[in-house]
Amino acid sequence: MPILIPVILSGGSGTRLWPLSRQRRPKQFLPLVSERTMLQETYLRTTELRDLVRQPIVVCNEDHRFLVGEQMREVGARARIVLEPAGRNTAPAIGVAAWLAIEPGHTASEAAGGEAEEGTASRGASEADDADKDPLLLVLPADHFIKDTRAFLQAVRIGMEAATKGYLVTFGIVPNRPETGYGYVRKGAPGEEKAAWYRLEEFVEKPDLQRAERYVKSGEYLWNSGMFLFSARRYLEELGRHAPDIAAACERAAHEAVVDGDFTRLGRAFLTSPSDSIDYAVMEKTESAAVVPLDAGWSDIGSWLALHDILDKDAQGNVLRGEVIAEGCRDCYVSSSDRLVALVGVDGCVVVDTADAVLVMRREAAQDVKRVVEALKRTGSSRL
Amino acid sequence: MPILIPVILSGGSGTRLWPLSRQRRPKQFLPLVSERTMLQETYLRTTELRDLVRQPIVVCNEDHRFLVGEQMREVGARARIVLEPAGRNTAPAIGVAAWLAIEPGHTASEAAGGEAEEGTASRGASEADDADKDPLLLVLPADHFIKDTRAFLQAVRIGMEAATKGYLVTFGIVPNRPETGYGYVRKGAPGEEKAAWYRLEEFVEKPDLQRAERYVKSGEYLWNSGMFLFSARRYLEELGRHAPDIAAACERAAHEAVVDGDFTRLGRAFLTSPSDSIDYAVMEKTESAAVVPLDAGWSDIGSWLALHDILDKDAQGNVLRGEVIAEGCRDCYVSSSDRLVALVGVDGCVVVDTADAVLVMRREAAQDVKRVVEALKRTGSSRL
Repeated sequence: MPILIPVILSGGSGTRLWPLSRQRRPKQFLPLVSERTMLQETYLRTTELRDLVRQPIVVCNEDHRFLVGEQMREVGARARIVLEPAGRNTAPAIGVAAWLAIEPGHTASEAAGGEAEEGTASRGASEADDADKDPLLLVLPADHFIKDTRAFLQAVRIGMEAATKGYLVTFGIVPNRPETGYGYVRKGAPGEEKAAWYRLEEFVEKPDLQRAERYVKSGEYLWNSGMFLFSARRYLEELGRHAPDIAAACERAAHEAVVDGDFTRLGRAFLTSPSDSIDYAVMEKTESAAVVPLDAGWSDIGSWLALHDILDKDAQGNVLRGEVIAEGCRDCYVSSSDRLVALVGVDGCVVVDTADAVLVMRREAAQDVKRVVEALKRTGSSRL
Repeated sequence: MPILIPVILSGGSGTRLWPLSRQRRPKQFLPLVSERTMLQETYLRTTELRDLVRQPIVVCNEDHRFLVGEQMREVGARARIVLEPAGRNTAPAIGVAAWLAIEPGHTASEAAGGEAEEGTASRGASEADDADKDPLLLVLPADHFIKDTRAFLQAVRIGMEAATKGYLVTFGIVPNRPETGYGYVRKGAPGEEKAAWYRLEEFVEKPDLQRAERYVKSGEYLWNSGMFLFSARRYLEELGRHAPDIAAACERAAHEAVVDGDFTRLGRAFLTSPSDSIDYAVMEKTESAAVVPLDAGWSDIGSWLALHDILDKDAQGNVLRGEVIAEGCRDCYVSSSDRLVALVGVDGCVVVDTADAVLVMRREAAQDVKRVVEALKRTGSSRL
């Protein structure tokens, strides 16, 4: 029976949900959909896998260590919290996590001494030991929403079939619209007879609308979700093959990592890694890519519009949070912090009130929040 | 030479500019158009009449006495501040002011003793004494905006001609649109040959749009502004004739008023007065009504829309006050207090941010602020 270690990537620093998400509190740390934060929900979903799942690894920026620690503590998780001194994108973050999954208990002094190599791991141990020595990694961005947990868990179980056979699995979201803001993957033949996982034929960059419409119609294309499942050793093998610089930096970083109490601190070795995504560095190049379709009400909540879309609305299409009065309004998302927000005769708007800033925006302009954020950067505003 | 006493009516408690105007700070106490409050601007306009004008009388609710006192002090005014224990509409407020204008200097003890009757005032004194004994009252609501002070002063001078002849003058605003929210007055023949004031033929209630359009086209109709000019004694005469109950209550209230330091406090006698407007109680009934057309960029700033309309706008039609970022917005009025307000892709909206409440409203829905205010009343909210 394989075991599964959730690797939760919590390094994001998006400001597309400004003014609620800030540099100091990106959206994974916010309770956007439920009472729990996105990070907490991501973790809690994995606990449904019960005895398959082991202590999660959360990779985050050093600045967010207490946020992560506290949010994990709140939901009773004993996570291994890996601190990046600076982000290097997903390929190195997962590389370090893979090393740490294989060789857990490193401390500073041990790391300086022995270097463990993949090939030298004992093969004679029991099956349980083997599973522990090559756990599967379930890589999950901390800031994605999944509505249907059962469908997600089912997809994970399917992914495990492929991963135990050495495939590197990506989860491909079944598209419900011709989205031009995401990359797509094309699925090929089933991985084996009657399998619900597929060989991954091709990655494609964000398409134009016409192409996106064709993709959706074809039934062959799925959104590239950023969620993955593979054996730790297989990932490190493929990383070593296709991105040896990253692989080498990750190995050193993992071995030199200092475990102190709650935190596993990565040092300068990690910073020597090139910055690259797992898609570019590994998935697009490996011969062993597979894909599991996922149809579970997924959203990366990439904008206020996206958040409004996934939430339950009242009869007028409004989502009203906090102390809000809405008179003659439709299709609005309104969230108030500690003030009263009164909306009169407004349609299709997003209003977000926080302690030091208020955003008022047409739903359709949701991508333009970045223009405000850029303006704030130019002026060095504290409101970032 | 007649003398003029401004009677500034500051009893309004409108909430049409909620959330900026509140029960505790109605709009006359807000700096809506300039750095000065509406009350201050109203007073300062009268000082342009220089040697014609005497110490103003400000009538306000007891609750607002310190606001009035401080705002008058700020602009160097020594006003006589008359405190109503509760509002009785304009006819009694002006009635009391008229008595106080004729017989200043009352104190509690004097008031209890001698009763001064209009007819017994000495007629033999000098012209200056006569003027002091029957000053003209320039009655001005404290919350009206007038853009063109020169045109206003010119109208006042014309009104003085009529008032010194015993007429009760109302200022009629030359309409620039078929407004259905105001009452109208119809002007008749010039008061005398070549005079710029007219006999007032008729008061008409708020018309429907069709009728309003006809009124505007005719050139005979003017908006009923709520500004008046007449001799104090003539007003009291006409009040006594057409509303004897009010007149009697005003006389008693003025004589029993207690002057203490800055304030002239009206007592229970004032509360015995029926509540009525000067229009209904006097102006619509008197044979001596006259009207002076006023074309001076007047506005009663009866809504956020009205305020937006009179203010200078940027090239996109926006008025942005305080810390505001507007990206791709047109025809918006935005005012921030101590927060950042960011507006993205929004057209034709009013956004007003205050310490405890934020209003977001379509310009066209400006009259519906009252629905919010009513909702707040129902819940006993502190945000009123």
